[in-house]
Amino acid sequence: MAATTAGPGTALASWRDGPAKDAIIDFVANAEAGPVEERVAVFDNDGTLWCEKPMPIQLDFILRRFVEMADADPSLRERLPWKAACERDYAWLGKLMEEHYAGDDTNVRVLAGGILAAYDGMSVEEFEARSDRFLRDTRHPTLGRGYLECVYAPMLELLDHLSANHFSNYIVSGGGRDFMRPISQEVYGIPLQRVIGSSAALGYASDDRGGTITHKAELDYLDDGPEKPVRIWSRTGRRPLLAAGNSNGDVPMLDFTQHEDKPSLRLLVLHDDQEREFAYTGGAEQALERAAAEGWTVVSVKDDWVTVF
Amino acid sequence: MAATTAGPGTALASWRDGPAKDAIIDFVANAEAGPVEERVAVFDNDGTLWCEKPMPIQLDFILRRFVEMADADPSLRERLPWKAACERDYAWLGKLMEEHYAGDDTNVRVLAGGILAAYDGMSVEEFEARSDRFLRDTRHPTLGRGYLECVYAPMLELLDHLSANHFSNYIVSGGGRDFMRPISQEVYGIPLQRVIGSSAALGYASDDRGGTITHKAELDYLDDGPEKPVRIWSRTGRRPLLAAGNSNGDVPMLDFTQHEDKPSLRLLVLHDDQEREFAYTGGAEQALERAAAEGWTVVSVKDDWVTVF
Repeated sequence: MAATTAGPGTALASWRDGPAKDAIIDFVANAEAGPVEERVAVFDNDGTLWCEKPMPIQLDFILRRFVEMADADPSLRERLPWKAACERDYAWLGKLMEEHYAGDDTNVRVLAGGILAAYDGMSVEEFEARSDRFLRDTRHPTLGRGYLECVYAPMLELLDHLSANHFSNYIVSGGGRDFMRPISQEVYGIPLQRVIGSSAALGYASDDRGGTITHKAELDYLDDGPEKPVRIWSRTGRRPLLAAGNSNGDVPMLDFTQHEDKPSLRLLVLHDDQEREFAYTGGAEQALERAAAEGWTVVSVKDDWVTVF
Repeated sequence: MAATTAGPGTALASWRDGPAKDAIIDFVANAEAGPVEERVAVFDNDGTLWCEKPMPIQLDFILRRFVEMADADPSLRERLPWKAACERDYAWLGKLMEEHYAGDDTNVRVLAGGILAAYDGMSVEEFEARSDRFLRDTRHPTLGRGYLECVYAPMLELLDHLSANHFSNYIVSGGGRDFMRPISQEVYGIPLQRVIGSSAALGYASDDRGGTITHKAELDYLDDGPEKPVRIWSRTGRRPLLAAGNSNGDVPMLDFTQHEDKPSLRLLVLHDDQEREFAYTGGAEQALERAAAEGWTVVSVKDDWVTVF
């Protein structure tokens, strides 16, 4: 059976002819021989499906919440991380990321404490309504477009091509599961039950209207690094056939996506297009080394994509 | 649009005419007006979809593993819970359950410690292969049939009727998620990604063949009581339209399944047929009280089911 609809040439119109496009077309054609239920494809979100610079979209959402909290309680204006949010101190956030890559998570913990406090006691419905509103109404700071238009067009075509060939696509993000769910179907064609991501611990309290689930001020799990394969297995019960990522935190998930007896494809998005998007390899050093050593398919934004957005 | 295939009369042939069957038919007919993606139905497993007496099927699996462990390390024969398994001391297990219902979990913790030790370091593939083999090869101790034939025929018809009407059925069990996954599609028509259940914490270790996920000697979560709504939300992102259970541990899940503006159905299976199955209400006292107070639909094995298996 040939790969379905409209032929891969048309389906992947924003992909330039070259090794990355060839690898995708070959993989999907080979996967046709296997059972439909095994066709599981997993995608990191930030930097893989949508833009993560100058800062991850969810961080913008969180910083705005910090400002809102400090407006309600001015004493927070003098404390980190609220202070950095109120003063738009992006240098503090930049330093935090540099320290993190260098192995020092002191300020990451300061930020994480603020994030957990930010939604403590909030119902999951309220959280999703806030996320939904933010994502629809907020513009990217430099790209001149709304956040929901910061999705990579070639990756959307890849998701469509996989769906047309009976793959189940999952988001496997280090970002918040419940942050992405309100828009995942509309933007990616991925139903909310196929969004895997980090989550706060949740608690259930009964009442006479069916009970309420609320965020607690503690992490359930951070879906990054070696936790990604664990969460993929826990949710899907399978080892995927395709994985796409862009950073060191995706290495275990890419590693996990291999089979002795089935086709598999590992894609690593390389951000090398300062003109149309951003050029950076910070946080992707080991992933790029592994890609070179193992023959994973590197997707160059500059060379492989006709259009970015 | 009328409820699909073959008409509910034929679809629910093992259900006697009466209020339970009427409630199911009415609910499915009313749900037709709502969006397909909201049609989520959740089912407890032990005592709701298959027989849980004289002991939960997974407990038999675990006791056999204890004996295997004691064969490999005879010093375990003198220690609980291995001692009880080796000596077939079902009185100890019965007492443990009575103490549990009375609020004393001392021996539950002794058993839980044994269970966590029993699979410590075992790969998820090995665990599933063992579960698969056990479920296919083992006979129920008193019913004169294999464990996989201890599924309730009327509940299978209900699952089929819901699937035919575009519901997504999920198992939401206090038992082990990975214990049920190998047989969920074949036995219930429920794909493994829709099995929600308790799980040990899992760890990922990389290697040159795609890495291995193994069980750790600690619990990730016990999917029972107030944890059931939390895990339903985490997996599906929705509040279900239908929930079916049979015990106190299902009350929060049944409670959670209500809507101001959508149809919903709560089913509670009442085991009142000593002749064809078992008659018991131990562990279901609060659930039965709530059903009476809230008008949940009680399903009597004796009165509502033409056939049980």
